[in-house]
Amino acid sequence: MDINVVNALTYEDFVKLFGNVVEKCPLIPAAIWSHRPFKDLADIEAHIRKFIHSLPDSGKEGVLRCHPDLAGLDLQRGTLTRESQEEQSQAGMTTLDSAESLQMYSLNTDYKERFGFPFVICARLNSKADIVRQLSERLKNDRAVEEVTTLCSLRLRNIVLSDIQTKL
Amino acid sequence: MDINVVNALTYEDFVKLFGNVVEKCPLIPAAIWSHRPFKDLADIEAHIRKFIHSLPDSGKEGVLRCHPDLAGLDLQRGTLTRESQEEQSQAGMTTLDSAESLQMYSLNTDYKERFGFPFVICARLNSKADIVRQLSERLKNDRAVEEVTTLCSLRLRNIVLSDIQTKL
Repeated sequence: MDINVVNALTYEDFVKLFGNVVEKCPLIPAAIWSHRPFKDLADIEAHIRKFIHSLPDSGKEGVLRCHPDLAGLDLQRGTLTRESQEEQSQAGMTTLDSAESLQMYSLNTDYKERFGFPFVICARLNSKADIVRQLSERLKNDRAVEEVTTLCSLRLRNIVLSDIQTKL
Repeated sequence: MDINVVNALTYEDFVKLFGNVVEKCPLIPAAIWSHRPFKDLADIEAHIRKFIHSLPDSGKEGVLRCHPDLAGLDLQRGTLTRESQEEQSQAGMTTLDSAESLQMYSLNTDYKERFGFPFVICARLNSKADIVRQLSERLKNDRAVEEVTTLCSLRLRNIVLSDIQTKL
């Protein structure tokens, strides 16, 4: 996919295409459209990263709070976004047994009580065992925003490497 | 509705309840949840206003770009959010004749080409004639963000004055 194709998109098509690269935050791609023309995919990623880091702490926490729990209510109810559904599925979150589900519920609850936002991890890059281990161990939250930008990077690549025409 | 009820909400219920007070920007209520406890409804509004004004210009434009055109494609396709559908309906945008529709299309297109974001106006506070007149005349965009916060204020009041239990 040619970056010139991306640079020629109206903001409406740009947001339609990249609207969920940061979960439930179409505001972010809608904002960085202002910075066209982009040099390449890495340039788009850099603008998104810069935008998120420019937010006040409450805004960074807001981005995190737009993410669903891993193996949480949205997965059970079928209300995950397509992107989250794919990610959680790849990490084995859709095939937990009842003991594993209960463990995830308990760990998620503890994490949210401690930090006021959900545990966010790039599910595609971690196995089920890794996720449970990190969810148990991550007592510091300084990695949370970095996980969002990693997720975003993979979602962007997924779009750009597939056929843009089918998404517009 | 008691502000203590709002202050006791988890971030998940808070975002569920107030997620679309700024069109398609759940990031914003998710962010200002960090500022609990709120004194009253006006305090919530003030935090939202402050958050939007703290965004870089690209972010303010991003908020505007999350809004649909008035009498635009989303209305035609039935893909407006519930809130926008109600607002556009109250302003008579759902019952335009073909000449009026064409006029709105033309005015919207001109406006978006000029500014790079859609014409946003508080449809509930303006008649169809007012909207067409302002869309034709508003050559400066400094009112756009103010319209977003007025819209937000009315959406907040609508939620808070109705029965919270039915929304959670």
